[in-house]
Amino acid sequence: MVKTEIGYTTVDAITVRGLNLANDILGKFDFVDMVVLTTMGRKPSAQEKVMLNLLLVTAADHGLTPSALSARLTYLGAPEALQGAVASGLLGAGSVFLGTTQNAAQMLIDGAQGLSDASDEQAVAKAAADLVASMKAARRPVFGVGHPIHVNGDPRVPVMREISQAEGFYGIHWRLMDAIAAHLQSLGKRLPMNAVGACAAIIADMKLDPLLGRGLMLTGRCAGLVGHILEERATPIGQELWDLVLSQDPRNEVP
Amino acid sequence: MVKTEIGYTTVDAITVRGLNLANDILGKFDFVDMVVLTTMGRKPSAQEKVMLNLLLVTAADHGLTPSALSARLTYLGAPEALQGAVASGLLGAGSVFLGTTQNAAQMLIDGAQGLSDASDEQAVAKAAADLVASMKAARRPVFGVGHPIHVNGDPRVPVMREISQAEGFYGIHWRLMDAIAAHLQSLGKRLPMNAVGACAAIIADMKLDPLLGRGLMLTGRCAGLVGHILEERATPIGQELWDLVLSQDPRNEVP
Amino acid sequence: MVKTEIGYTTVDAITVRGLNLANDILGKFDFVDMVVLTTMGRKPSAQEKVMLNLLLVTAADHGLTPSALSARLTYLGAPEALQGAVASGLLGAGSVFLGTTQNAAQMLIDGAQGLSDASDEQAVAKAAADLVASMKAARRPVFGVGHPIHVNGDPRVPVMREISQAEGFYGIHWRLMDAIAAHLQSLGKRLPMNAVGACAAIIADMKLDPLLGRGLMLTGRCAGLVGHILEERATPIGQELWDLVLSQDPRNEVP
Amino acid sequence: MVKTEIGYTTVDAITVRGLNLANDILGKFDFVDMVVLTTMGRKPSAQEKVMLNLLLVTAADHGLTPSALSARLTYLGAPEALQGAVASGLLGAGSVFLGTTQNAAQMLIDGAQGLSDASDEQAVAKAAADLVASMKAARRPVFGVGHPIHVNGDPRVPVMREISQAEGFYGIHWRLMDAIAAHLQSLGKRLPMNAVGACAAIIADMKLDPLLGRGLMLTGRCAGLVGHILEERATPIGQELWDLVLSQDPRNEVP
Repeated sequence: MVKTEIGYTTVDAITVRGLNLANDILGKFDFVDMVVLTTMGRKPSAQEKVMLNLLLVTAADHGLTPSALSARLTYLGAPEALQGAVASGLLGAGSVFLGTTQNAAQMLIDGAQGLSDASDEQAVAKAAADLVASMKAARRPVFGVGHPIHVNGDPRVPVMREISQAEGFYGIHWRLMDAIAAHLQSLGKRLPMNAVGACAAIIADMKLDPLLGRGLMLTGRCAGLVGHILEERATPIGQELWDLVLSQDPRNEVP
Repeated sequence: MVKTEIGYTTVDAITVRGLNLANDILGKFDFVDMVVLTTMGRKPSAQEKVMLNLLLVTAADHGLTPSALSARLTYLGAPEALQGAVASGLLGAGSVFLGTTQNAAQMLIDGAQGLSDASDEQAVAKAAADLVASMKAARRPVFGVGHPIHVNGDPRVPVMREISQAEGFYGIHWRLMDAIAAHLQSLGKRLPMNAVGACAAIIADMKLDPLLGRGLMLTGRCAGLVGHILEERATPIGQELWDLVLSQDPRNEVP
Repeated sequence: MVKTEIGYTTVDAITVRGLNLANDILGKFDFVDMVVLTTMGRKPSAQEKVMLNLLLVTAADHGLTPSALSARLTYLGAPEALQGAVASGLLGAGSVFLGTTQNAAQMLIDGAQGLSDASDEQAVAKAAADLVASMKAARRPVFGVGHPIHVNGDPRVPVMREISQAEGFYGIHWRLMDAIAAHLQSLGKRLPMNAVGACAAIIADMKLDPLLGRGLMLTGRCAGLVGHILEERATPIGQELWDLVLSQDPRNEVP
Repeated sequence: MVKTEIGYTTVDAITVRGLNLANDILGKFDFVDMVVLTTMGRKPSAQEKVMLNLLLVTAADHGLTPSALSARLTYLGAPEALQGAVASGLLGAGSVFLGTTQNAAQMLIDGAQGLSDASDEQAVAKAAADLVASMKAARRPVFGVGHPIHVNGDPRVPVMREISQAEGFYGIHWRLMDAIAAHLQSLGKRLPMNAVGACAAIIADMKLDPLLGRGLMLTGRCAGLVGHILEERATPIGQELWDLVLSQDPRNEVP
């Protein structure tokens, strides 16, 4: 049957997950409450809210990432359609950037299948080594490690680990992710854990669906992209960026 | 120069609006704080946070709206790319649905140009009548009024008005929007204020940029769409929806 | 270096793949010539042009497919941005619909690796059986077979096979695709070859890149979606479609 | 009623605009025939085919335009979803680049309303001057003129004019567009006609719907973007482009 359990509408009321939107939700739910209500049909705990805010904040953009650039270049051609610029920026959230949180969380969940005791450091280390070996055998990248700029370690990771510990979400998947990074270091690879790895560990230790993990990254980034477009309208760089690119090829004549 | 004031990155630190992301922001800013930091470079007041949460919660989807349907139909063909399904759903946030919050806020800001005293009910009523007349003359729709289902009034509007009053954001634009709806009623038109009108009044009375208004709608809806896709994966309706559509034309043979 | 071999621009001329756009291309290249020039840097043979036209024509939409529905629902909200409606429709071209041509072509190329003699029917039949078995073992679907409506066989396939034979592109991949369908029939499965299978066989036998295969599907569909939006503007069905969906859930009150 | 006149499907046949897809269309219609069948329900004349090919070829990308850059940056993050990269590139086809063909064609159609005799040069010149004046009064840009690089004139325009004349499509809208450029020159503005102006004149003189004009631009560009992505996969520049951008702000530390 073509219907949704998320909500329905009558002449006088909108019902979302069994609650009356006007009377029970507006002014009483903040955005993170609503994210959890919409996606899971319940309210988050205080600890979960801290973590969900952390994930959304981490995903909001900083600097001129490919998604911010794509959004700005799209806005340059279609300033009348903000939704197109934002959509353009979100479309890069795939298996390599941002969306990779989903892949990394799934990797951790699969890799931790056989682990029952989070405090068994040896078992966790073995699972990490097995996971790295199996990814290598399948010629697939290990998710959640390495960063082109933060080569000595991603500055976000220690803070995210501390918050996870404080809120009770430093579980088997965080330990596995830590063990993966340690194992790679022992192999002589300069691939410290990055923010994607930390986000993925949090999602897995919160028992969230990895698909929701990617969804949270999209939601957080959405806000970041809006910030970039507001700046682009006020002090545009899109045209200069285009000229800069053209100027790299001496065959082009740039104004 | 091709640069952004939003942030920059060094080997050891990420700076967002002059703050150190790891030390000053993570765990200390919630998502709404981050939205305001990213887009306006400051922290919101407690009252602003209530209102921003209200806007984001209102924008999150309920029921099978066109954007939810578009996202689900896209997911049906490309389940490996959540970002595409979400982008597809956001792309409908234009001048008719959702994105229209921007248009409505701009309409209110323009319409309130000459008004200095919010308590001058007569002046507000005249501005409302002028605005309706000028939109009609330009053959453009009045934004923020009318609803196909909530024909007796949108149930969200009274609650949103109360919250705006409680938080100190019931100003000249809210009054103008109320006066527009009253004027349309006096003309015998069944066009009560809808949630878009309320969102637009809030944005204008908060002195937010109308473009940010559309951006907040996109951000809130992003979360709602993720909820729809999670349900679509668990209990799919996309294929049934397709069959339902085909069955409307008796020339089609549907399985 | 940030540059492209596709083209560059001076004050007086635009160069595309070494040709002067104004003097050498405009009026002398038709669209299919340009597709080949842009993607492969050469001109197509007469036989290739027949096949590329066939692929583009096949990909153009017919009827209310999910991509046409998604485009129409997006247009309903944002009629000022045709590009958003078209993008929305294209985003469903993933691993399940339309884009699956790429996956199917790759499957055929991989499956035909060890085959050297296209006329060795036994070897082809064995490769087909091996491929079906390995897909089953990996719990992955066999691409290019089965259709929800054309349960007795996709009417496009015989015509596409004939044209491929006439133009000299009925090679090892077409034979492998035919053998896969035959093998599935011998297993008692009602999964005849569909248009995706035929498109994939053509792409593989033309030695085109499977990624270009998906690209051709997107290009052809783009035109089909434009047709749907033109009709949607003239005789809209988007709102009725929305009402139809809402009416499926008796809890909704629909106008 | 939720149905389309474009086509329908039975167990044994697909019907498009009243024709049997397998028997009447495949192998008999080339892509441009199919574009016209899908969008207008008829076959194009030989002259129309020349012009439609010209429009599609002109729209295919050359060099690193914003749409090509956006597509490449999106592909960098989500190489598994070509459709997302292409959609990202198309989303910039708005009122400033590419999609502006629609706006320009509408401008010419509106501006030529009162003109009955194409050979009345004085009347055309007056209409051009009126149009420029009214756009200025409305603070809207004149579409179809000016180019950041081709400051002495767009090299595509003379060739497109000649082809239009040869095929019988140099009518009132072409003359008006030429007169607009001449009028701007007489005002001392360095704004010669650009390719968008020529495309718009062609669309208007072919009596095509301006919306279809934008649709043809999207379809042609779609092929160009596929070419860019094929090159990006073979010889990637996305990461270098990102580094190049970051290096513009000395506060960033780039690898």
